Amino acid sequence: MSAQIGVTGLAVMGANLARNLARNGYTVALHNRSVEKTDALLAKHGDEGDFVRTETLQELVDSLEKPRRVLIMVKAGAPVDAVVDQLVPLLEEGDIVIDAGNSHYADTRRREAALAEKGLHFVGVGVSGGEEGALNGPSIMPGGSKKSYEALGPMLEKISAKADGEPCCAWVGTDGAGHFVKMVHNGIEYADMQVIGEAYDLLRSAAGIEPAEQSEIFAEWNKGELSSFLIEITAQVLAHVDAKTGKPFVDVVVDAAGQKGTGRWTVQSALDLGSPVSGIAESVFARGISSQAEQRAIAQETLAGHEASVEVPDGFVEDVRQALYASKLVSYAQGLDMLGSAAKEYGWDLKLDEIASLWRAGCIIRAALLKDITAAYKGDSKPANLLFAPAFAESIAAAVPAWRRVVATAVQLGIPVPVFSSSLAYYDALRRKRLPAAVVQGQRDLFGAHTYQRVDTEGTFHTLWGEDRSEISAVDTH
Amino acid sequence: MSAQIGVTGLAVMGANLARNLARNGYTVALHNRSVEKTDALLAKHGDEGDFVRTETLQELVDSLEKPRRVLIMVKAGAPVDAVVDQLVPLLEEGDIVIDAGNSHYADTRRREAALAEKGLHFVGVGVSGGEEGALNGPSIMPGGSKKSYEALGPMLEKISAKADGEPCCAWVGTDGAGHFVKMVHNGIEYADMQVIGEAYDLLRSAAGIEPAEQSEIFAEWNKGELSSFLIEITAQVLAHVDAKTGKPFVDVVVDAAGQKGTGRWTVQSALDLGSPVSGIAESVFARGISSQAEQRAIAQETLAGHEASVEVPDGFVEDVRQALYASKLVSYAQGLDMLGSAAKEYGWDLKLDEIASLWRAGCIIRAALLKDITAAYKGDSKPANLLFAPAFAESIAAAVPAWRRVVATAVQLGIPVPVFSSSLAYYDALRRKRLPAAVVQGQRDLFGAHTYQRVDTEGTFHTLWGEDRSEISAVDTH
Repeated sequence: MSAQIGVTGLAVMGANLARNLARNGYTVALHNRSVEKTDALLAKHGDEGDFVRTETLQELVDSLEKPRRVLIMVKAGAPVDAVVDQLVPLLEEGDIVIDAGNSHYADTRRREAALAEKGLHFVGVGVSGGEEGALNGPSIMPGGSKKSYEALGPMLEKISAKADGEPCCAWVGTDGAGHFVKMVHNGIEYADMQVIGEAYDLLRSAAGIEPAEQSEIFAEWNKGELSSFLIEITAQVLAHVDAKTGKPFVDVVVDAAGQKGTGRWTVQSALDLGSPVSGIAESVFARGISSQAEQRAIAQETLAGHEASVEVPDGFVEDVRQALYASKLVSYAQGLDMLGSAAKEYGWDLKLDEIASLWRAGCIIRAALLKDITAAYKGDSKPANLLFAPAFAESIAAAVPAWRRVVATAVQLGIPVPVFSSSLAYYDALRRKRLPAAVVQGQRDLFGAHTYQRVDTEGTFHTLWGEDRSEISAVDTH
Repeated sequence: MSAQIGVTGLAVMGANLARNLARNGYTVALHNRSVEKTDALLAKHGDEGDFVRTETLQELVDSLEKPRRVLIMVKAGAPVDAVVDQLVPLLEEGDIVIDAGNSHYADTRRREAALAEKGLHFVGVGVSGGEEGALNGPSIMPGGSKKSYEALGPMLEKISAKADGEPCCAWVGTDGAGHFVKMVHNGIEYADMQVIGEAYDLLRSAAGIEPAEQSEIFAEWNKGELSSFLIEITAQVLAHVDAKTGKPFVDVVVDAAGQKGTGRWTVQSALDLGSPVSGIAESVFARGISSQAEQRAIAQETLAGHEASVEVPDGFVEDVRQALYASKLVSYAQGLDMLGSAAKEYGWDLKLDEIASLWRAGCIIRAALLKDITAAYKGDSKPANLLFAPAFAESIAAAVPAWRRVVATAVQLGIPVPVFSSSLAYYDALRRKRLPAAVVQGQRDLFGAHTYQRVDTEGTFHTLWGEDRSEISAVDTH
């Protein structure tokens, strides 16, 4: 029996993708470095579909119909290169190597170029949805050559999540585009989680609402414009009571958030692109601060709060909901803006409507909002920023007064809301007629002859600060 | 006549360093790719000291006493590699190649390792102070081997700026440490400039104080704890009136701040180190937003401000000064924290007192404050964060009430103060007993089985969210 796809790397994500493929009627060849995992999978789930057991990569390759499709699900970095190096000599022109892990898009670009020279397709595929999504339908973001998608797309679309009956899978662009889009998805996810945390902290610390009651508030919010997977699970997390202590679960968990790197990569890549993803960056830094246990312990003893005694405004819960919504929108706007910059930089024809569309289900940031984002980028007049789409310009405007009240209150009460406040600063900076960047340009011209432009004349200028302060035309070499 | 040092790359920074060396009594061999620049330098400044004119790198090398010292001042990136590649075959064991440009520390580490294999010293040297500093005394941050500093240090110390009679030059650590420290200097510089811009904007937009009057305020501030080069030149920039229009200079300058990359590198490197440099990041993003001309134009038409009508509090100017001081302190704290993390990561014995000390004069961020920072890190009990040093814990505490008022007012008035507010959020997060990172950990455990720690027990745990919500011990593999 020849298999339609092979999967190597059968830890839980690889195993679940293999099972998802088999459950959807594909014959799946299985391989793992140690055969025990393969056998364990077959023993437990072998009846879910047609599997081919293999012990070596050669056997795996031999078991596949052509063009061969080999999906690798191993740890990002050197392990991917190791498997690719072993696979390549076994493959033939036209075969497709699929990396479904969380690889950095720059690695994917490098690998794609190297394999293309040998006539092989290398497809970096972003997969979001965690273990459960991998098994039952993730959101899938494939890059690589368009040609490879002909042979691969139908399978991926079949196993993907569905939203309104449509697959949450589409070819997003060449080479590393799939992993790039997945990376930005994760960056938005970081911000999305942090703003929920800030809302929780405000409700708890400013309004004194306990987790159990907050669970009901989040469940209620999940029925409106905030409706999303992350709000839904937050309600579950907040409702959960620790069996051992009888305390709210969130009170027994150490408040140090870990990270696996994709949030960090998002911000680093955005900096290369000159794309201001301040809210996403603040959410990454917030996790960093939370993990600085030693400094936090000293700071509690050393740094004075001097909180102001301000009244929590009436309607505070609804205010927080609106601030959360507005901040969340900004994170999406920043992430999508970054995709626009990347498309130019890397020559990708990223379609923001399709990307928003395939995040509608299966992935961690799935949200009702994404349907409207999809609609905002459909058609001919693409907004230069998500916030400029009429529907969103209107909905964020409605939230602005509450957003200001909430951030001002938090600041006075000493409750850190880094993403709420950073997002508001982004919103205010973007819409501002004059920014103090003019002063910065003056400073730079004075100490480094960095030159400047004038608002009233074309050209580049420099003031002779150390001489008579006259202005000369300059060549912009800085 | 044999020269004690050679300089190749005679654009203004290289030419000024060469002149500085010659003025200090060293015989300096000159080389430039096109000899015209060499001759122009000699024609204009040849009488300032002893120069040796050379036309080729071979001549340059032949003109030097041993061990040879060749200082390269060319554009960072490929041009440095090109010059190094040409130089290396001409040199002998023990010779010293000095890169005084703004190279990335990772490149410097790579080059240092490559040249060390050939028995050559490669020394990455951070130089700050702009063109004027290069000529009259910059702040100098040399890395490379300690041995190379024996032959090089005395010359660099002699041409460096002096603070309280001490040279602003000291060996900071091996391989790329010099360029790393210079990069962080620049990151702090970005934040330092941005917070001044935010103060300006608040005084202008909230308090209605025109640039000429602000110039006097900044000049006054320059006499107190804010005393620094950047505050001093801000007073000059704000006082300047455009001759062509009679308007304040800052009103005729296009408000789009450029960047040369070191601010971006600082944030990217901090992300690799897990070091939360949120204020520095916000200042880089603020420049990015200022340069998004197209989006800004649309945003002005599209996004609603809904500013609240709040009173500007009494004593607002002094409040702004205190908020500026506190935010500036946080930027320094973040930059120094990052140096601490880098020391661990790269095996550098960075001495924060010495680094603060060599920033006291010559460089762009030179400030009275740096004397106190030097003192804070002297002796045995190094603070884990600059803000924990007793003097700074006290001075920032005194500023907190004003800082809160200023940020709350800015937020209500729609004036973006991304670094003021981000720094305050950092301060509040660091000193907070419980952060909402616990909620984030709950979310991550629910959707990705990422596990968590408990506050009351050692170990790593996972809740079976999809089953009976019991808690199991887990291996932290995420």
